[in-house]
Amino acid sequence: MFFASDNWAGAHSAINDRLSKESTRFAAAYGNSELDKSVEERFNEIFEREVSVYFVSTGTAANSLSLASIARVGGVVFAHSEAHVIEDECGAPDFFSGMRMVGVEGAGGKIDPARLKARIAGFPQDALHHGRAAAVTMTQATETGTIYSLNEIEAIVRIAKDNDLPVHMDGARFANALVALGATPAEMTWKRGVDVLSFGGTKNGCWCAEAIVFFNPELAKEFAYIRKRSAQLFSKTRFISAQFEAYLQDDLWLDLAGHANAMATRLRAGIGALNSARLAWETTSNEVFAVLSKASADAAKEKGSAFYDWPVPLTMPDLVAEDEVLIRLVTSFATTQEDVDQFLSICAAA
Amino acid sequence: MFFASDNWAGAHSAINDRLSKESTRFAAAYGNSELDKSVEERFNEIFEREVSVYFVSTGTAANSLSLASIARVGGVVFAHSEAHVIEDECGAPDFFSGMRMVGVEGAGGKIDPARLKARIAGFPQDALHHGRAAAVTMTQATETGTIYSLNEIEAIVRIAKDNDLPVHMDGARFANALVALGATPAEMTWKRGVDVLSFGGTKNGCWCAEAIVFFNPELAKEFAYIRKRSAQLFSKTRFISAQFEAYLQDDLWLDLAGHANAMATRLRAGIGALNSARLAWETTSNEVFAVLSKASADAAKEKGSAFYDWPVPLTMPDLVAEDEVLIRLVTSFATTQEDVDQFLSICAAA
Amino acid sequence: MFFASDNWAGAHSAINDRLSKESTRFAAAYGNSELDKSVEERFNEIFEREVSVYFVSTGTAANSLSLASIARVGGVVFAHSEAHVIEDECGAPDFFSGMRMVGVEGAGGKIDPARLKARIAGFPQDALHHGRAAAVTMTQATETGTIYSLNEIEAIVRIAKDNDLPVHMDGARFANALVALGATPAEMTWKRGVDVLSFGGTKNGCWCAEAIVFFNPELAKEFAYIRKRSAQLFSKTRFISAQFEAYLQDDLWLDLAGHANAMATRLRAGIGALNSARLAWETTSNEVFAVLSKASADAAKEKGSAFYDWPVPLTMPDLVAEDEVLIRLVTSFATTQEDVDQFLSICAAA
Amino acid sequence: MFFASDNWAGAHSAINDRLSKESTRFAAAYGNSELDKSVEERFNEIFEREVSVYFVSTGTAANSLSLASIARVGGVVFAHSEAHVIEDECGAPDFFSGMRMVGVEGAGGKIDPARLKARIAGFPQDALHHGRAAAVTMTQATETGTIYSLNEIEAIVRIAKDNDLPVHMDGARFANALVALGATPAEMTWKRGVDVLSFGGTKNGCWCAEAIVFFNPELAKEFAYIRKRSAQLFSKTRFISAQFEAYLQDDLWLDLAGHANAMATRLRAGIGALNSARLAWETTSNEVFAVLSKASADAAKEKGSAFYDWPVPLTMPDLVAEDEVLIRLVTSFATTQEDVDQFLSICAAA
Repeated sequence: MFFASDNWAGAHSAINDRLSKESTRFAAAYGNSELDKSVEERFNEIFEREVSVYFVSTGTAANSLSLASIARVGGVVFAHSEAHVIEDECGAPDFFSGMRMVGVEGAGGKIDPARLKARIAGFPQDALHHGRAAAVTMTQATETGTIYSLNEIEAIVRIAKDNDLPVHMDGARFANALVALGATPAEMTWKRGVDVLSFGGTKNGCWCAEAIVFFNPELAKEFAYIRKRSAQLFSKTRFISAQFEAYLQDDLWLDLAGHANAMATRLRAGIGALNSARLAWETTSNEVFAVLSKASADAAKEKGSAFYDWPVPLTMPDLVAEDEVLIRLVTSFATTQEDVDQFLSICAAA
Repeated sequence: MFFASDNWAGAHSAINDRLSKESTRFAAAYGNSELDKSVEERFNEIFEREVSVYFVSTGTAANSLSLASIARVGGVVFAHSEAHVIEDECGAPDFFSGMRMVGVEGAGGKIDPARLKARIAGFPQDALHHGRAAAVTMTQATETGTIYSLNEIEAIVRIAKDNDLPVHMDGARFANALVALGATPAEMTWKRGVDVLSFGGTKNGCWCAEAIVFFNPELAKEFAYIRKRSAQLFSKTRFISAQFEAYLQDDLWLDLAGHANAMATRLRAGIGALNSARLAWETTSNEVFAVLSKASADAAKEKGSAFYDWPVPLTMPDLVAEDEVLIRLVTSFATTQEDVDQFLSICAAA
Repeated sequence: MFFASDNWAGAHSAINDRLSKESTRFAAAYGNSELDKSVEERFNEIFEREVSVYFVSTGTAANSLSLASIARVGGVVFAHSEAHVIEDECGAPDFFSGMRMVGVEGAGGKIDPARLKARIAGFPQDALHHGRAAAVTMTQATETGTIYSLNEIEAIVRIAKDNDLPVHMDGARFANALVALGATPAEMTWKRGVDVLSFGGTKNGCWCAEAIVFFNPELAKEFAYIRKRSAQLFSKTRFISAQFEAYLQDDLWLDLAGHANAMATRLRAGIGALNSARLAWETTSNEVFAVLSKASADAAKEKGSAFYDWPVPLTMPDLVAEDEVLIRLVTSFATTQEDVDQFLSICAAA
Repeated sequence: MFFASDNWAGAHSAINDRLSKESTRFAAAYGNSELDKSVEERFNEIFEREVSVYFVSTGTAANSLSLASIARVGGVVFAHSEAHVIEDECGAPDFFSGMRMVGVEGAGGKIDPARLKARIAGFPQDALHHGRAAAVTMTQATETGTIYSLNEIEAIVRIAKDNDLPVHMDGARFANALVALGATPAEMTWKRGVDVLSFGGTKNGCWCAEAIVFFNPELAKEFAYIRKRSAQLFSKTRFISAQFEAYLQDDLWLDLAGHANAMATRLRAGIGALNSARLAWETTSNEVFAVLSKASADAAKEKGSAFYDWPVPLTMPDLVAEDEVLIRLVTSFATTQEDVDQFLSICAAA
């Protein structure tokens, strides 16, 4: 019953097998092996166009270096006020890009288009002292388990483009969002105008596989230097490639995300049926936010469940009663129906 | 016959098996699992004292963040003029530490103590405009295949300490040096006064396992923030730990390095016996630098050998005749006697 | 009728005369002349204790380098959400300090203590991913013309100290605040617990005289290097010293600020008596924010008045009617009664 | 007898008078006054073409921000190994540009073209690990008192351009070099291919007047943001403009430099005629390097001369006998014949 985070899961056996196979070979280092090249090709297929792909070690690196690729001196980046780049990366995006992250509010973890527009307007192009608008970054799926619809993505992108701003998508849970929407990778990104994507594999069955995917080749031009200077060029890069090869083969990645999402749906349904618990808000990815009686939460923890208590959003002060607690539950490719059902029955019994 | 670099090898089967085993489990992320803790303990045993250990993704990260931990504004770091931190990391050490690397010459890839002393003297403590001496970094084994003796390490450290400078050791090939010297990890580091170590596992049988080991706890105090801000905190850290667990078990790491060194010795002996080749200079680790007739080098490449031509050192202008070429050969845990012998016989036949 | 900003004024004649006198002499460069030393002593007297004083070229530099002196990796600095360090310095504080500025709301341009406390609590000391609380900076007088009382300063500082955070004061209009409060420099700073101060002279009669004053000697220890590395060490530093010598002599600086404040008071009184204008909010320094009929504002501009239209605060959406405009008027040592009265009569006539 | 540096002199009376006049006026801040605009025009005339001019506070800022304007990630900048950007700016050029300074040797303080070519060749465009060649910077007049001829400038620039590298000129003593060569500003800069110039006024009669002059408009495009973010935008910029207006009027700047150079010539001639002293090497600007008997040097200091002892260049180990000392003498606009003659007679008498 490990619902603390999808990064508590191990690695999928197919990915692990591919890694094992790779371990017995010699091959060129620093991304120059045939495997590296073929996986790059695979990304072209997945996205139905030529893309530039660069592997890095962590999601924080993927976001930070993506933003570094579009860095402008004095630039500000607009992100949802609860975005990972603001709340959870210890300032790495600012450090690598030299830019400031500016929070934009919005319900359900999604940037509100009207507020984004107003925020950007506060940085007119000649306002030297303020700094200047330089990029918009959006998270798909969001930090709070919701998902931008294709139209919602398009609305955000259109505002960015009207202001000549490139758009970055933080796809740490890209596959979960994709499956939930039933969209193609192309539809959810460059066909809507996204310029650069953090494509996460770690949370969805790899052990360490994060890629930056450039749809805008202009942004990729200097990127080899940015990555190397940022200490993110693996010597044995092909071990990342090997993970991605297995991950992207025969729709494994979509199956894994589909499973995680289904487990979350099962959790949501179960919680909705409980007396001692309720959903805090609607989610559609592999994250579930629930209000539990403290008794249920304590019982679940005692019996071996792992999950995090979550801070009550400032905008929802009445969400949680005194004898209740807000928790986050994250499912993964490795979550089983038994895990879910056991957790629910513990809660029900408490 | 892959002698291009030790990072062309795959991963050792014991390390791979340990990874596979790890892949089926859930565990806490970000270095908080029991495995992470137990491997940290293992480092204490290996170094015969309490140390602070932090994993990072690349050797460049290990060096750059080590130096960031001892950063001083306006600081300069003294390194051999051919050191990896100067020649091969695209400025990452400067970027992360905010300091400048100052090259110190020295024969055989090793810092010359007298020159180091003179160089440091050029940065007296009150010389605001010059900047100030802040650290010494030495590479063990060196970039040119040589190894500092324990006395030579001590001589460098003593000069550093006389000037209140902390000492960093770049141990990308730490195990190779250790085995060649027949010393213990403690003897080659903190017992000589080294403060912080880049402890490399990737070149010696892991697929991605680099650690920063602090002997000076003062330097480690802020390091958790330095690493996270530098985008080097893996979520599934335990997969690094798993590699190190197998690597450090039953002296595997020393056996692997011993094998690589032995293969280099075999190469050296074979080359010494050839008419069409000779050693460029003496080496004692797993790197061999040889002058080959172009005919031999071409034949070797044609028949499937991989190695790099090497630039002729400015200090050895007469090393290579017109119909010759300087090459670097690197052996690894995965190099076989057959590889070596086949390479030698091709050269002999050319 | 130049009310655009106090930095539109020239330099006071006494300061100019002192500069002229200095221009005929030779003296040691880089802050080593006797004049430099004696002005440093003068700061000790002004603040009734030993302080460390460093001159820099701009207010932005004073703030940015003050924060650089207390930089922590992954650190966040709490400032009022409309503070100069957030809104008007193009990211320089982030660039020089490597830290992020986090806005705290509060009425009247002043940090709200309860919100500050809540904000700091969001960065507990072990919350690696969030970053960590590192400093509080407050502006005295504020960007909106208000002034923290001594008790209000103390309240903010106490919260900072309870969290082990150093406190910086942006005193670009330090003298205006001091005179308005009738306090001593010591009372408004270190006696309340302020650790480092941006002490501005430029807006109050100097042409370029900004100092960083350290009350906490620990923060000053590395500062000579920070300043030099930041390209802020003047060779002919004594020309800054000369300005400060005249500025601080015989209370000139307090007289100049007193005059500017008095002119603002006269403006406020006059505007309060007009039909076509009203004060937008209460101010007590040399800044006045007024709502004017567009007719008045246009007439004033046409007849040679210089001032800036000001964005209506988001928190005061009903402040300004459709045929009105919010403006900022700033007085200085060089503002005359005639300027004020002429402006008022133009508005009255419109 | 102040020969310590040209920055020990005060400010020329014409420049001071212009400043005084400016002090009584109001004018727009941040470079938007009419005076600012007219001085920008004046630079166009001086350089016989349209240029972009930006004022900054120090020579270190001028160099550092010039290099920041041509910054490339992973970039290296080639400079003479004794250049100010390497030896005397505490790492500021590296800090602001994010690039590394790579020293190139050369006799007489001038970059040796052949060595420059070889050094650049060490950074081929695809050599990710090394970093990449990004700029060449040359100092005119050099740190050792010599001057590049127009042909020598052209030779350096041609090598840079053959490698697609922009060229920066550090002109802290631009006027001294110009007068010594009898060239025009255009001939010594953009007509030879220089892209950006640090144009120094401080050492030649201003009290604080440093400009960055862009001949390549592409480099200037982002510069307003670079300067502001670097805390180098003066609010009362017009006080810099006022200095430059007087400086550039009626050839004052050339007259002042001509005087300083003439005083240096007088010094050189006098020293050449002494028994107790000799020139260390030939110089042609306002710097003189001399070997004095210690007795002479001591006598001169005792009787009020100010000058610096200078480290003996490593390439000239036999330059100075045991009872001798190498000193640097710098003349300025404010040096008088009497100063020179008195110094010489003290040396002669010792």
